[in-house]
Amino acid sequence: MSAEKEYKVIGTRPIRHDGVDKVTGRALYGADFQAAGLLQGRVLRSPHAHARINSIDTSQAEAHPGVKAVVTSEDLTAAQDKMVNLGEGAANLKFMCDNILAREKALYQGHAVAAVAAINGHIAEEALELIKVEYEVLPAALEVRAAMKKDAPLVHENLKTDEMGKKSEKSSNIASRFQHKKGDVDKGFAEADVVLEHGFVTGTVHQGYIEPHNASASYNADGELTIWCSTQGSFNARGQVAEILQHPVSKIKVVPMEIGGGFGGKISVYLEPLAALLSKKSGRSVKVLMSREDVFESTGPNPASYVSVKIGATNDGRITAAEAYIAFEAGAYPGSPVGAGAMCVFSPYKIDNGFIDAYDVVVNKPKTNAYRAPGAANVAFATETVIDEICEKIGMDPLDFRLLNSAKEGDARVDGPVFPRVGIIETVEAAKEHPHYSAPLEGKHRGRGVASGFWPNFAFKSSVSINVNPDGTISLVEGSTDIGGSRASIAMQAAEVLGIPAESVHPTVVDTNSVGFTDVTGGSHTTYTTGYAAHNAAQDIKGQMMERAAKLWEVDATEVEFADGVFRYVNGKEEEIDFKALAGKLDQTGGPVMGSATVAPSGPGASIGTHVVDVEVDTDTGKVQILRYTATQDAGKAIHPSYVEGQIQGGAVQGIGWALNEEYIYNEDGQMTNASFLDYRMPTCYDLPMIDTVIVEVPNPGHPFGVRGVGETPIVAPTAAIANAIYHAIGVRMRELPMSPGRILKALGKI
Amino acid sequence: MSAEKEYKVIGTRPIRHDGVDKVTGRALYGADFQAAGLLQGRVLRSPHAHARINSIDTSQAEAHPGVKAVVTSEDLTAAQDKMVNLGEGAANLKFMCDNILAREKALYQGHAVAAVAAINGHIAEEALELIKVEYEVLPAALEVRAAMKKDAPLVHENLKTDEMGKKSEKSSNIASRFQHKKGDVDKGFAEADVVLEHGFVTGTVHQGYIEPHNASASYNADGELTIWCSTQGSFNARGQVAEILQHPVSKIKVVPMEIGGGFGGKISVYLEPLAALLSKKSGRSVKVLMSREDVFESTGPNPASYVSVKIGATNDGRITAAEAYIAFEAGAYPGSPVGAGAMCVFSPYKIDNGFIDAYDVVVNKPKTNAYRAPGAANVAFATETVIDEICEKIGMDPLDFRLLNSAKEGDARVDGPVFPRVGIIETVEAAKEHPHYSAPLEGKHRGRGVASGFWPNFAFKSSVSINVNPDGTISLVEGSTDIGGSRASIAMQAAEVLGIPAESVHPTVVDTNSVGFTDVTGGSHTTYTTGYAAHNAAQDIKGQMMERAAKLWEVDATEVEFADGVFRYVNGKEEEIDFKALAGKLDQTGGPVMGSATVAPSGPGASIGTHVVDVEVDTDTGKVQILRYTATQDAGKAIHPSYVEGQIQGGAVQGIGWALNEEYIYNEDGQMTNASFLDYRMPTCYDLPMIDTVIVEVPNPGHPFGVRGVGETPIVAPTAAIANAIYHAIGVRMRELPMSPGRILKALGKI
Repeated sequence: MSAEKEYKVIGTRPIRHDGVDKVTGRALYGADFQAAGLLQGRVLRSPHAHARINSIDTSQAEAHPGVKAVVTSEDLTAAQDKMVNLGEGAANLKFMCDNILAREKALYQGHAVAAVAAINGHIAEEALELIKVEYEVLPAALEVRAAMKKDAPLVHENLKTDEMGKKSEKSSNIASRFQHKKGDVDKGFAEADVVLEHGFVTGTVHQGYIEPHNASASYNADGELTIWCSTQGSFNARGQVAEILQHPVSKIKVVPMEIGGGFGGKISVYLEPLAALLSKKSGRSVKVLMSREDVFESTGPNPASYVSVKIGATNDGRITAAEAYIAFEAGAYPGSPVGAGAMCVFSPYKIDNGFIDAYDVVVNKPKTNAYRAPGAANVAFATETVIDEICEKIGMDPLDFRLLNSAKEGDARVDGPVFPRVGIIETVEAAKEHPHYSAPLEGKHRGRGVASGFWPNFAFKSSVSINVNPDGTISLVEGSTDIGGSRASIAMQAAEVLGIPAESVHPTVVDTNSVGFTDVTGGSHTTYTTGYAAHNAAQDIKGQMMERAAKLWEVDATEVEFADGVFRYVNGKEEEIDFKALAGKLDQTGGPVMGSATVAPSGPGASIGTHVVDVEVDTDTGKVQILRYTATQDAGKAIHPSYVEGQIQGGAVQGIGWALNEEYIYNEDGQMTNASFLDYRMPTCYDLPMIDTVIVEVPNPGHPFGVRGVGETPIVAPTAAIANAIYHAIGVRMRELPMSPGRILKALGKI
Repeated sequence: MSAEKEYKVIGTRPIRHDGVDKVTGRALYGADFQAAGLLQGRVLRSPHAHARINSIDTSQAEAHPGVKAVVTSEDLTAAQDKMVNLGEGAANLKFMCDNILAREKALYQGHAVAAVAAINGHIAEEALELIKVEYEVLPAALEVRAAMKKDAPLVHENLKTDEMGKKSEKSSNIASRFQHKKGDVDKGFAEADVVLEHGFVTGTVHQGYIEPHNASASYNADGELTIWCSTQGSFNARGQVAEILQHPVSKIKVVPMEIGGGFGGKISVYLEPLAALLSKKSGRSVKVLMSREDVFESTGPNPASYVSVKIGATNDGRITAAEAYIAFEAGAYPGSPVGAGAMCVFSPYKIDNGFIDAYDVVVNKPKTNAYRAPGAANVAFATETVIDEICEKIGMDPLDFRLLNSAKEGDARVDGPVFPRVGIIETVEAAKEHPHYSAPLEGKHRGRGVASGFWPNFAFKSSVSINVNPDGTISLVEGSTDIGGSRASIAMQAAEVLGIPAESVHPTVVDTNSVGFTDVTGGSHTTYTTGYAAHNAAQDIKGQMMERAAKLWEVDATEVEFADGVFRYVNGKEEEIDFKALAGKLDQTGGPVMGSATVAPSGPGASIGTHVVDVEVDTDTGKVQILRYTATQDAGKAIHPSYVEGQIQGGAVQGIGWALNEEYIYNEDGQMTNASFLDYRMPTCYDLPMIDTVIVEVPNPGHPFGVRGVGETPIVAPTAAIANAIYHAIGVRMRELPMSPGRILKALGKI
C-alpha cells in the first residue's frame, strides 16, 4: 500500500552508509578498542543463585604481579552512601549498584562479585581463581508463581510489600502491583455468549545479540572518565555510570563503538562502571569483556511469566469483556517490563469492559531487561491464543474476528490512552488479502495460524546537527547508536528535505561530548525521533541556504523558493541554483553553514502487525517446522523499505525462536544449564523459510513524514500465531513456551 | 593596563581543560594511533639537492614478504592528469603533488621519492634500501640572490618568468614579484636629514616543534578515507588531501589528534596523502612517521632571505620615506611568505612615502612554509635595525622615536590597509614605562636594545556548537585544533556569555565530519575567530534558555532577563533561576538544548609588540648572553592572561633562537649538515632569563570581547632588539642572522 505523499529519497533503498565498513570488517566494535598499556579486566561471578557473602579475600589476587587492580562492592561506596529506600522501582540506586557488584548477597548465578584488571586476559582469569569468597548458600526463589507464595524464600529480606504490592510490615517477593480498569467487566462477561479463560507460561529468553558486552575505560588524573562501549544509548550509559559512581555527568564521555545487536539488552550498564573503577584504581586504561556464558547468566533477559487471560464474546464475534492477570519475573531486582505488558495485552482490540491486574515479582535470576517489545510477546501469546479458541467456538474466521474488533482512531485502550490514526485494521486486511491466507494447505499435521501483535512505540529525545560541505554533501551528526540501519533512515530524512541523494549525507554517530542529548536506540524511537530531529535540522539548513542564495542574487531571502533541491528566484529576474552548486559558494556568501535541532516529540504512533504462519508438526519427534510465514505491519511511512522488511523479518525470527526452542533451562539449584549458543537453541537459516513481509503505510500524524517505529512490533505475534497453527495441525492447544519437541510430545500424550 | 569592560571569566586564569591529560601522558597524539593490523610506513627521500630521476625500481622492495605496499609518483596520477599551469603560486596542484612525491626531478635533499608500508617499522626501513633510484645529479640553486642571477641553475626548467616575475619566454627562478607604493618616495628622501640603507641576510630556520609529523590512514573499500594526524587544521588537511588524491572532500574524514607544536609548519600535508595511498594499496590501516631528520629536511621551514631597507628621517625624528627590497627563498616550489613580509616591513610606522619591492624565488631547498608571523621577522630585523641606527645618528631615544612615528587609527599602511583602533603607541609606552627600560645596565660589553614587531593577524572561518548538560555544564564542540591553550580561551568566551565558570565548559575538538568548517589554527585567528563563534553559539544557547525559563514560569520569553548567570522575571511575580538549575529542568521544558554558530569575521585587529633586551657579549668566544628581556604586546583583550604571556614568552624565545643560533647549515652540495636538535641549536632554559611580559589591552573593535590574535607578533621583534643590544654592547652592527659566536667574532675582526 502506498503512502499519501510523493517522496524522492524516502521509500528508496540506498546502500546503508555503514554497510561497506561492516561487511569488510573495518567497523570498530567495542572489543576492537586499543590503547597503549591497556589492561584486560575480568569479572568473578557467583556460582550460586542465592547466597550470603560472608567475606571476600582479594589479597592473593592483588599480590599477583600481573594484576593491577581488584575491585569489589567496597569500591562502590560513593553511591551506597547515598543509598535510597527500597521498593522504589527500576531507578533504585542501591539496586543498580548491587547489580554491578553484589554487596550483602549474591542474588543469582552469574551475579558479579569482584573484578580484576591484569596485564592480559589470561592473568586476569587466573586472578579470579585467587579471590576467595565465603558464601552461605540460601534457598532460591526461581519461578514467578512460587516466588509469590507466602513461604517462598525472600530474594530481598527487606522488600516490604504485601501481595497487593503495597508497603507492608512484612517482606515479600512482590515488588509492585498495579491495575487498569475500563467499563464494567462483570456486565461485559454477562453479555457474552462465549467466555474462555486460560493460563499461559513463558520461559526466560535472551535477546541473543551476536556481540557480547564490552567496556573500556580511561579514568584520568583529573577525574575525566572516557568509556568506549557497545551500547544502545551513549547518553543513557553516561547517566547510569554517573549515578553508580556518583561522578558528574559532564566528566564522563561515552564513546559509542559499533554495536553487534542489542534488542533492549544493551541499555543497562554492566561492565562500564567496573572498567571505570579498575581504570581509576590502576591508573591505566582497562578493557572488560564478557564471555557468551557471562552474557546469558549476567545480563538482562526477557522475563519468564505467568499470564491468564479471560475473554468474553458474542456468537456474532463481538468482544464484550476481557480480563488479564499478569505476573512477570523481574529477576533479582524490581522492574520487569510488566507495565509494557499491560499496555499491550488487549490494545489491538476495542474493548469496552476490561480489567488488567499486573505483578512485578523478584526471583533469584538475572535482573530482566528490555527485549524487543518487552513484555508484549508474553501477553500476546495468551490473548491471541484465547481469541483463536473463541473464533473456533463461534465458527468465525480469525481475521474477520479481528476486522470486527480492531481498535480504531478515537478508541481508548484498557490502560487509558486514546488512539490517534492507527493502522490496526489495515494490517489485518493486508494479511487477509495476501495470497498466503487463501492458499490451500494440504498434507498431514499441517496447520495455519494467525495472530496480531501490538506495540505502542515510544518517543524520546534526540539531537542532530548538520554541516554543509563544499562539495554539496552534508555531514549529519547524531547521538543515536546505529543498530539496524538508522544512519540510513535518519540521513534519508535530511536528504528528502534538502533535495539531495541519500549518498550525499555523511552520518556520524558521535560521543556524548559532541552532540546534544539523545536517548537510547530503543522503544522503536530512533527513525521516528532522531529522524524528526534530522528533518528539523535540515529545515534549519534549508532556511540558511535560502538566505545564502538571496545574498548571492542580492534579493530578499523571503523571495527565494526551494523545491526539488533547487533554489529559485522568479520575481523579475530568473535565478536558480541547486543545493550542490550553492554549497560550493558558501565562502562568498558568509562562510560555513551549520544547523541543528533538538526534539522531544509526543506522537510516536502505535504499530501493529498481523502474522500468518503455516506449520507442519512431526508427531513422532515433536518437531515443528515452519512452512510459510507472512508478516504484515504498519510502518506509518517506510523510510527505507529494506530495513523495515529486515526489522519485520528479524522480529518474526526471534519470535519463532521464542515460540519453538528458546528458554533458560535451570537446574533445581537455580543454575543455568544451557548457557551457550549450542544449547540455547536459536533458529538458524536452516530452520526457517523466507519471511514474507507486507509493509502497510498508515502515516503517523505525529511525524513530518508519517513514520512509526517498526523494530519491536514484529516479535509480538509469532508465538501465538505458531501456537494457533500447531493447534490447527495436531489439535492440541499449547499454553507453555517454548513449544519444544518435548512439550509437543507431552501435549500429544506421547511422553 | 585594564580593558574597558568588567568580565567574570575573561581575564582569569583557570587550568586549561586539556592540561591534566597532557601532563600525565594520557593525551593521544598522532603517533599514539593504533589499529588492528596497522602497517608502518616510511619514506624514501632524495639524498641530492637537485637531481633528475631517471628511474625508480621498486620491485625488490615489493617482493619483500613483510612489505604490503610501495608507492611512487606514479600513484598520484589522478591529480597529475589534472595538472594545472605552472607559475600560478601556492595553490598549484602539480607543485603540491610533486612535493608529496617527486616526479621528474628531486628538488631538494629530503624530497620524498617513494614510500613503503610494511608489517613493522624495521622492515619498512629495510625496504627503503631495496628501492633503486637512478639519479642524474644536477647543479643546485641554494641561495636567494645567487638563484636570481641569469646563469643560475634552474629549479624548474619551465617556470617561465622574467626578473620582474612576469610571464616570459625564458625560464628563471623568480616565481613572482610585486610592489607596493605610497606617496612620493623620492620627495620623501629629499626631505630627510638622514638617509640610511642596509642589506640584511637571514638564514633558513625551522619551527622546531617537539613532535615530528605523523599520519595514519584507513582507506576503506567504499572509498571512505579516514586520516588521523597531528595537524593545525583538520579541514585544511582534508581539502589538501582531496585535491592531491582527487577524491571527494566529503569522503575524507580527518581526525585531529593532539599536536605537539606547529607554528605554521603543520598546515601543509606531507605524510597524509602517502598514508592514504599506502592504505588504499595495501587494504590495511597505515601509520607513517617522520624522524627528526625528516622534519628538518623535508618539511617547510621559514625562508632564508635578503632584505634591504632604506629609511629617511628628519633630525627631529620624523620618518619622511622608507623603501624595502625583499627577496625570499620559496624553497623548491613557489610560495614563500614574502607577501606577509611586505605587509609587515613598515607597518608599525606612519609612513607617507613608501615603496616595497618583493620577490619570491625558488631554490633547491625544502618548500618553505609558515613559521609564526611568517616573513615578519625577516623584514623587521632590517627595519628595526636601520631605525636604531637613525636614532643613534640623530641622538634620539629609540622609544621616543617610535612614539613620534607610530601608526594610529586612520593611518594607512604602505601596502594599503587603513588601521582601525590599534595599540601600537600603547606598547611603546608600556615598554618605556617598564622599570626595565630605566634600570641601570652596568658592566663591560653589555648593551640594551629595543625593537617593535608587527603582525596584521588574520580572521578565517570557524564553527562551534554547544550542548547543555543536565548538571549545568555545557559541551562545546569545535574544529580548531588546540596547540597553545585554545580550548581554554574559546571555552572561556562561551562561559562569559552564559555566566558559568570556565570549568563548566567541556570543550572537544572533533573530526571534520562532526562540526562545521573551521580553518587552521594559524594566523593568530583561533581565539579571535573560534572564540567569536563560541560567543555567538553561547548567545544562541542563552536565547534558548531564556525561552525555557519563560516556559517554566509560564511567561513571555521577551520578558525574561539574563545577567550574571541568572535568568530573571520581574514583571509582577518575581522569579529567578541560575543557569545550572535551569539546565536541570530541560526535560520538563521541551527537551535538549543545542546551539551553534558559524562565523567569517573581517576585523582581526593587528597586534604589535615592543621588546627590550639586555645582553652581554663574551668577546673572547663571541657568545651572546641574554641578561634581561621584557616584551610588551597589545592583546586587545587577554582572555586567559597566562596563555597570552606564554605566547609572548614562546615567541620571544623562538626569536632569540633565531637571533643567536638557529640556521640550516648546508654543504656546497646543498645537503643539510645539522639536521638534529643537537646540531640545530635551539635555546633551552639554560640559555634564557625569565621573559618578562606586559599585556597591553587596546580592545579590538572587530571582536565582541575585543580580542586580537597574540601568537605570532612576539617572534617579530627579538632579532632586531638583540642586534641593537649587541651594537650597544660591543659597537658592531650585525646584519646577518644568526648572530652566532662565529659571526660575532668575525664582526669583531677576531677571526
